[in-house]
Amino acid sequence: MLLIGEKINGMFKNVREAVQNRDSRVIKDLALRQMKAGADYLDVNVGPSAPDPVTAMEWLVNAIQEAGDFPLALDSPKPEVIKAGLKLCKAKPLINSTTAEAAKLETLLPLAEEYRAKIIGLAMDEKGIPAEISARLELALQILASATEHDIPLDDIYIDPLILPVGVAQDTAPKVLEAIGEIRKLSEPSPHLILGLSNVSQRCLNRDLINRTYLVMAMAVGLDAAILDVFDDRLMESVSTAQMLLNRDIYCESFVEAFRRKKNKVY
Amino acid sequence: MLLIGEKINGMFKNVREAVQNRDSRVIKDLALRQMKAGADYLDVNVGPSAPDPVTAMEWLVNAIQEAGDFPLALDSPKPEVIKAGLKLCKAKPLINSTTAEAAKLETLLPLAEEYRAKIIGLAMDEKGIPAEISARLELALQILASATEHDIPLDDIYIDPLILPVGVAQDTAPKVLEAIGEIRKLSEPSPHLILGLSNVSQRCLNRDLINRTYLVMAMAVGLDAAILDVFDDRLMESVSTAQMLLNRDIYCESFVEAFRRKKNKVY
Repeated sequence: MLLIGEKINGMFKNVREAVQNRDSRVIKDLALRQMKAGADYLDVNVGPSAPDPVTAMEWLVNAIQEAGDFPLALDSPKPEVIKAGLKLCKAKPLINSTTAEAAKLETLLPLAEEYRAKIIGLAMDEKGIPAEISARLELALQILASATEHDIPLDDIYIDPLILPVGVAQDTAPKVLEAIGEIRKLSEPSPHLILGLSNVSQRCLNRDLINRTYLVMAMAVGLDAAILDVFDDRLMESVSTAQMLLNRDIYCESFVEAFRRKKNKVY
Repeated sequence: MLLIGEKINGMFKNVREAVQNRDSRVIKDLALRQMKAGADYLDVNVGPSAPDPVTAMEWLVNAIQEAGDFPLALDSPKPEVIKAGLKLCKAKPLINSTTAEAAKLETLLPLAEEYRAKIIGLAMDEKGIPAEISARLELALQILASATEHDIPLDDIYIDPLILPVGVAQDTAPKVLEAIGEIRKLSEPSPHLILGLSNVSQRCLNRDLINRTYLVMAMAVGLDAAILDVFDDRLMESVSTAQMLLNRDIYCESFVEAFRRKKNKVY
């Protein structure tokens, strides 16, 4: 299970201010604590309001790497911002993300190839997120086909079927579970399946309960990666239990602690 | 989601003693509290050590029905014990359970037909529980075919693919998830899928965490019934959240409370 820590994002006030003030302590602290809490990758997003996003991304990547050579998920709708980050990454980077739009694929897939980066492909295009599962499958297939043409290994591709907040689009939640199962069958070996988990509970009460319940449901149908809050202990406990129940981690009396020890890297 | 409360079982000391002493207060209290906590059915099992199980079953059913005409799941490996309970049930009963053994099917299916009872079919036969999913599917299909010959509606049939304790048979947990998905496809409409949930965590630490995580995973692949501990609040919270995320219960800010209100019947 690939876990991407979501906390270094300019939509959060502490990060936005740290970027504005070039205060690297806040960023290094978030990076270290997320890695210790079990993150495999750190999402890096300058936020929608950064005045010079390319420079902000460069500064963020450098600030994080002062704390360690952590694997980074470069998160931006702008390919030039992702490219600025790729040039600086010391560990294998992850591009977050492309869509099925031709212009995006033609820009980002060559970058993934050049930097041997993992890449997230969102099952949407210039027309937005299709309501129907069959249309999302078609977009996933387009992304897989294009990535293969660029010699990107299937093991580096993460398809995101796009969950929406259950408070405004409740019928999407079971549809996305269905899509995860179907997308797994699109290639052999299967691509990875990822979700931006916190979206499911945007503007809901009981957010933590909704997040951990949906994550476990999605893991049951084949999800093997997520962008999430690794500081949520009960969420991480659910992940470790689901991993054990899927026979991916060995059962022992202290399986929750064993998962934590495996994940809690020491730097 | 059909929830069967597991607490009236002679393997629990309080119930065993209440049966021995014919102390109906203990039984009525367990019945009422389980119904209030959200049970749709009450499991009734005299336990393995009852000296006269037929008389014990009759006494238990009558004791419960002093508290109300609750739907009962008559739980015994002995058809004559189930038959003794069926004769007394005031609400639509549930037979827990048949296997795919010919002798069992030939005895219990006519009883299900006569008493218009729901029936649980365990995916096992005289040779035990098959390790392979394909063999369990075959047994499920045998049960469905026999039940259909006896004019038992598919809506009254609950197939149990049989979960084992994860501490001794860890690979069974993902296999049973797969089986649930496959058994759903065996007929149109699909039979119901049920698990004896607590089995998954027998002799494990973190039992509650394992139970609620596995239940939610199983619901994601099609489980729609379970025998479980309705007094476990966090388990019930997980059920209500999963129901909402499967779009079976309407989302509202207080979806957990709404589920409780719907389930917490007043007697």
